[in-house]
Amino acid sequence: MIAASRFHSHITAMSLCVIAAGGTFDKHYDEIAGTLGFGASVLPAVIARSRISQPVRLEQLPLLDSLDMQDEDRLRILDACRRAGEDCIIVIHGTDTMPETAQVLGQAELDKTIVLTGAMIPYEIANSDALFNFGMAFGVAQTLPAGVHVVMSGQVFAWDNVRKDRSQGVFQPARNTP
Amino acid sequence: MIAASRFHSHITAMSLCVIAAGGTFDKHYDEIAGTLGFGASVLPAVIARSRISQPVRLEQLPLLDSLDMQDEDRLRILDACRRAGEDCIIVIHGTDTMPETAQVLGQAELDKTIVLTGAMIPYEIANSDALFNFGMAFGVAQTLPAGVHVVMSGQVFAWDNVRKDRSQGVFQPARNTP
Amino acid sequence: MIAASRFHSHITAMSLCVIAAGGTFDKHYDEIAGTLGFGASVLPAVIARSRISQPVRLEQLPLLDSLDMQDEDRLRILDACRRAGEDCIIVIHGTDTMPETAQVLGQAELDKTIVLTGAMIPYEIANSDALFNFGMAFGVAQTLPAGVHVVMSGQVFAWDNVRKDRSQGVFQPARNTP
Amino acid sequence: MIAASRFHSHITAMSLCVIAAGGTFDKHYDEIAGTLGFGASVLPAVIARSRISQPVRLEQLPLLDSLDMQDEDRLRILDACRRAGEDCIIVIHGTDTMPETAQVLGQAELDKTIVLTGAMIPYEIANSDALFNFGMAFGVAQTLPAGVHVVMSGQVFAWDNVRKDRSQGVFQPARNTP
Repeated sequence: MIAASRFHSHITAMSLCVIAAGGTFDKHYDEIAGTLGFGASVLPAVIARSRISQPVRLEQLPLLDSLDMQDEDRLRILDACRRAGEDCIIVIHGTDTMPETAQVLGQAELDKTIVLTGAMIPYEIANSDALFNFGMAFGVAQTLPAGVHVVMSGQVFAWDNVRKDRSQGVFQPARNTP
Repeated sequence: MIAASRFHSHITAMSLCVIAAGGTFDKHYDEIAGTLGFGASVLPAVIARSRISQPVRLEQLPLLDSLDMQDEDRLRILDACRRAGEDCIIVIHGTDTMPETAQVLGQAELDKTIVLTGAMIPYEIANSDALFNFGMAFGVAQTLPAGVHVVMSGQVFAWDNVRKDRSQGVFQPARNTP
Repeated sequence: MIAASRFHSHITAMSLCVIAAGGTFDKHYDEIAGTLGFGASVLPAVIARSRISQPVRLEQLPLLDSLDMQDEDRLRILDACRRAGEDCIIVIHGTDTMPETAQVLGQAELDKTIVLTGAMIPYEIANSDALFNFGMAFGVAQTLPAGVHVVMSGQVFAWDNVRKDRSQGVFQPARNTP
Repeated sequence: MIAASRFHSHITAMSLCVIAAGGTFDKHYDEIAGTLGFGASVLPAVIARSRISQPVRLEQLPLLDSLDMQDEDRLRILDACRRAGEDCIIVIHGTDTMPETAQVLGQAELDKTIVLTGAMIPYEIANSDALFNFGMAFGVAQTLPAGVHVVMSGQVFAWDNVRKDRSQGVFQPARNTP
C-alpha cells in the first residue's frame, strides 16, 4: 500500500533533495576556450526559477560527462542517496549512461523515491528540454512509491527497463512489455 | 488499487491530451498595443521543445484570463475533458481561479487523471516557471490515479484542498491537514 | 570636419554614458500584480552581457513609460546629458514620445553625440529587439559627429526628422527627403 | 568628404547585405552528437527579430569555424563583398581569425563600407553578445565611410589595427596609438 499512502501524503509538502551530478543538463559554454564543459551548476538558478514553496536541498557532486563516469562515480551518487535525509531524491545526470547509474541505485533497494533525469540540450542553450525534464522528475518524485525511476522523453521508466537509443536521442523501454 | 495498476502501466507509453485554456502561461506581448494578451498559443512550441516521444493531442479552447472566466467557460473545459479519448489530461489555466475550475472538474468524477497547471510568469518572459510546471503536470498526469489535481509552487494538490495566496503568489492547501 | 576627426579617434576607446529613462525596453513583469511595469533596470545586465571593454557609466533616471513623460522629465534627461563628462551618450527611452525628447535634446545643441533608442518588445520578453537596438546605438554613438540621433527600426534618424508610425510600430522620417 | 556625405544620406534608408560565414555567432548544438557545430544559420531569425524596416539581403556562405578557414575561404568572402550590389556589408565571422579576413578585405580597397563582427558566445546560448554585436555592426555600417572595420568588445577597429587577445577574449588595437 505504499503508493496509496504516498498519494495521501501529497497534500502536505514533502522535503526533497536534488543531487547535481553533471551531464548535458548542466553543461556551460566557456567563452575563452570556446568549448562546452562544466562551471558553476545551473541548479540553484533552476530551483529558484521553479518557484518551489517546500524545502529543497541541493547537493552538488563533481559534475561529469556521463561517458566519463567510472564505478566510483556511480557509488558516490549512491552514497549521496543513502545519506540523504529526504524521502524524495532527484538526480541530474548525463543521458548516455543514465540507465547504468539507475541500475546501481535500483539494486541498492533504498526505501526512497529516486528519479534520474537530464537533458538532450543544455539548460543554457535555446530550446532546451532541461526545465521540462526537471519539472517531470520533481513531480513524479512526489507521487511515485519508493523505487528508482528514469524520466526522459516525456516518459517514466523503471530502473530495470530503460535504454537510450543514441541514434534517435530517445529513451525507450529496454525490453518488450509482456 | 488504481494507483498500483497505473504504476505498472507506466512502462508503456500513455497517450495524453493537453487542453490550452489561457492564463498567464500563454500570455503574449502585443508590440503594437504595448500590452500582454493572447495570440497564438505557445503550447505547440512547448510540446515540441519537451521532446515527448509518446502521442500528445493538443486541444485549444478560447484563451482567457482566468479572472474573466464565467461558468460557461469552466463547463467548456469540463466538456473537453469528458470528450477526450485519453486517460491523462493536462489543463493549462490561469492561476487566479484555477481552484474554482478544479472544483468543477473534480465534482464531475470522471474516470481520468486530470492535472491543472499554469504559470506565475508567462512562458515568453525571462525566468518563467511555465516549462517547469508543464513538466510537473505532465509527469504526475502519468503517475497519479484517476482524479483531479492542481500542480503549482512545486507541489501537487487535491482539487478540493487548494487555494492561491494572491499576496504571496503561492499555492497552498485550503485547510489544515488533519 | 568633426566627422573625420571622430573617425580617426575610433581606434582609441571612447568613454560612454548610458542614461536609463525607462520605456518598453526596461519593462518588467510583476508576478504578484500580473502587470508590466518598472523594477530594477535591466541595463546593468545588458551592459555586462555586451562584453564592452571600454569604460561605460550608467546613470539611472526615474524609469517612465514615455506616454507619461512631462516636460520636466525631458528636462531631467537634458540635464543629465549636459552634466555628463562623456562625449558619447546613449539614452534608453520609451518609443511613443522618443521624437519629442529628441527635439528637446537636439535644440540644446550640446557638443556631444547623443543617441536615443528603445525597444518594441521588452528586453525580458522573447524575441525582443532591445539588445539589437542597444548595439546599434552603442555603435553609432562612437561613429557619428556631435548631434542628436534616434536609432530604431534598423535605421539612424536625425532628431528633427523622425516620427513613429504607431499603427505599424515602425520609425520613419517625419518629412520627405528633398 | 565621404564621411560627411554619408552622414547626410543616413536619413534615407540604405540597403544592406549580411554575409553569413560562420563562427561562434552561428554555432548550433547538435543534440544527437552532443557537440557544437553548424546547422541552419540563425541569421534569418536574427534579422527578423531586429525589426529592420529597410531592405536587407542575406547571403549565406559555407559556415566555418574561423580556425578552419583557408585562403580560399577568405577569397570567397572577398568575392561575395565585391559582387554585392549594396554599399553597406556586414560579415558574420569567427573571432579567432577575424583580423586576418579583415586584412584580405581591407587590402582590396572596395568602395563599400564593410564591417566584420562575430560573438564570444553563440547566439543560441544564454548571455550571448551576438545580438549586441550584430546591432553595433548594423549601425556603424550605415554611418562609417567606405572602408573595412571590425566591431567587437564594444569598439570599432580599423582593419589594419586590430588583434584578438585570446587569453582574455577581448579585441584590442594591434599597435599603440601614436
